Amino acid sequence: MASRSIRLAVIPGDGIGPEVVAEGLKVLEAVAPAHDLKFEQTSYDLGAARWHRTGETLPDAVLEELRGQDVILLGAVGDPSVPSGVLERGLLLRARFELDHYVNLRPVKLFPGMSTPLSGVKPEDVDMVVVREGTEGPYAGVGGVLRKGTPQEIATQESVNTAYGVERVVRYAFEQAASRPRRKLTLVHKDNVLTFAGDLYQRVVQRVGQEYPQVATDYVHVDAATMFFVTAPQRFDVIVTDNLFGDIITDLGAAIAGGIGLAASGNVNPDRTAPSMFEPVHGSAPDIAGQGKADPTATILSVAMLLDHIGAPEAARRVEQAVADDLAARRGRPARGTAEIGDAIAERVAG
Amino acid sequence: MASRSIRLAVIPGDGIGPEVVAEGLKVLEAVAPAHDLKFEQTSYDLGAARWHRTGETLPDAVLEELRGQDVILLGAVGDPSVPSGVLERGLLLRARFELDHYVNLRPVKLFPGMSTPLSGVKPEDVDMVVVREGTEGPYAGVGGVLRKGTPQEIATQESVNTAYGVERVVRYAFEQAASRPRRKLTLVHKDNVLTFAGDLYQRVVQRVGQEYPQVATDYVHVDAATMFFVTAPQRFDVIVTDNLFGDIITDLGAAIAGGIGLAASGNVNPDRTAPSMFEPVHGSAPDIAGQGKADPTATILSVAMLLDHIGAPEAARRVEQAVADDLAARRGRPARGTAEIGDAIAERVAG
Ligand SMILES: CC(C)[C@H](C(=O)O)[C@@H](O)C(=O)O
Ligand SMILES: CC(C)[C@H](C(=O)O)[C@@H](O)C(=O)O
Repeated sequence: MASRSIRLAVIPGDGIGPEVVAEGLKVLEAVAPAHDLKFEQTSYDLGAARWHRTGETLPDAVLEELRGQDVILLGAVGDPSVPSGVLERGLLLRARFELDHYVNLRPVKLFPGMSTPLSGVKPEDVDMVVVREGTEGPYAGVGGVLRKGTPQEIATQESVNTAYGVERVVRYAFEQAASRPRRKLTLVHKDNVLTFAGDLYQRVVQRVGQEYPQVATDYVHVDAATMFFVTAPQRFDVIVTDNLFGDIITDLGAAIAGGIGLAASGNVNPDRTAPSMFEPVHGSAPDIAGQGKADPTATILSVAMLLDHIGAPEAARRVEQAVADDLAARRGRPARGTAEIGDAIAERVAG
Repeated sequence: MASRSIRLAVIPGDGIGPEVVAEGLKVLEAVAPAHDLKFEQTSYDLGAARWHRTGETLPDAVLEELRGQDVILLGAVGDPSVPSGVLERGLLLRARFELDHYVNLRPVKLFPGMSTPLSGVKPEDVDMVVVREGTEGPYAGVGGVLRKGTPQEIATQESVNTAYGVERVVRYAFEQAASRPRRKLTLVHKDNVLTFAGDLYQRVVQRVGQEYPQVATDYVHVDAATMFFVTAPQRFDVIVTDNLFGDIITDLGAAIAGGIGLAASGNVNPDRTAPSMFEPVHGSAPDIAGQGKADPTATILSVAMLLDHIGAPEAARRVEQAVADDLAARRGRPARGTAEIGDAIAERVAG
């Protein structure tokens, strides 16, 4: 059988980004042959160095090239030498918005054998998927500043939410919930304060929910949700929430599910009008960059999500299983470096 | 010595509100005589029942009466029979905004003997104060909806932040930090995405910080902050943050510090142009209302904060010590009801 060729854009980025991406690619190459996959890689040098050199974050021409790819793997962006927000807004968020990644998919799953800061929590207690809206809400970039630097300064940020945007992400979340054994969808918002946006989410969940009678729905305020994450994570199966609340609760989710070194994510365009982008939830961690200490597992799990997205679920399960086996074998063993972990997992998927 | 008379407004509110407030008042009455305090109480029947009866949440005339009081004790507001947001915005937030409670003061402190969902955490690891802005930000109530109920609906929420509002809360936070042994102030925001508001907070912290060279300052993104709350709470001493981030992280803070049954708060007007309002962080918990099961400890600790505010620190310490002793004695004992806990603490402060 001829192997299927996939155009893969790679954006290693800053800090530990290149190190963890190298291991993600190692695992991808290891799993590919057995599943008749071939990846044609193109690497894009976006991030802090490029910005310092040229002032560019995500130039239009690069964006157009990315549109021609099948899928994107991203490491991490951000560096203390660049003013806060420049790379985040100019590169990461620009890619999410321009490529219409309206689903930011973030599993929160505690693998057996992994430690969690919560006492008395078992792996089966932490197994949820957060479906975070990715292209609007408080991330819209709408806002401004008036009389900057004076005692009369006013700074605004506007959360923009549309029926169009909310309905498509809610629909995706219902599909996820319908495909999981527990079939439960929780809306997380703050509708008693953010009454306009919260009411829109509530009405859309109610309306779309009528098409999914097999899915039970409920609602939790975002403040209470953070409490449940640490006291009763088993309360959640699928969560749908807005861009900012999703950002916050998935970092907390990573913390309770074995740490940020394991948290994977997909910036998904379910309509496939542009390539989706997979990336670890963690940042560029400049403090440990270049030392070969970063855990590449989150990137490798993001590679598994990438494989699912391109229609190679067996390959995805194989990578996930290799990670699970590797994690189970970590207990009581000395810490390994970035490449050692990548090698071990690559060996498991190949072998 | 003649005793000092304090005009105390009491808003028991909904659900468990009246039950826990009764115990708070019991403790207040028990501690008062030894500290030459006398409380002239006026009770206000605000909440769900009043709204159903008259459609009123916080009528102007009641607000004017409240302005004439020295201090306010509030139980909880909210009931499933009232549409979400009506009482929250119309009563609780209206009081906070009209009485200019620009500091929402929320200690996060793990008392010895209390259990926490975090493993391996000691009481001294969780001892912080969150200074949450209380009168602007995403709570401003600015926003709207266009083409409601149609596929073209747009719902917006605007976060409004002023140099005036940010500076006064930041200044208060520096004062708090300067008065604590560790002298550390952390700004929590999301300045890489909410660039205008985040930048305003950053600049104000930097500028005001020059007046407090003895206070060390740092910055943590709100998403990372939730992670540190569960993995390294000892990282925080005093936190200053906006209204919404403060709402979220203090619920998480309550969860790690013994639970929502213990979390106290003050809606403080430091300039004393209007009475401050003290309330437990928890809500009205309609599911357990009327059963005498609610833990009144959060309200009693809010009473201690109230005593501090009216200039009776010895009385405040006495209530806090009684609570600490009661909590230490709880371990391994059968659970007690609302009134039993109130009685036990009242007895300790009186005896
Ligand atoms: C880097 C930042 C802009 C980003 C976000 O807020 O979405 C990150 O925190 C994430 O969760 O992917
Ligand atoms: C009831 C609600 C409006 C309120 C808030 O969001 O401030 C509550 O959650 C709190 O923290 O006091």
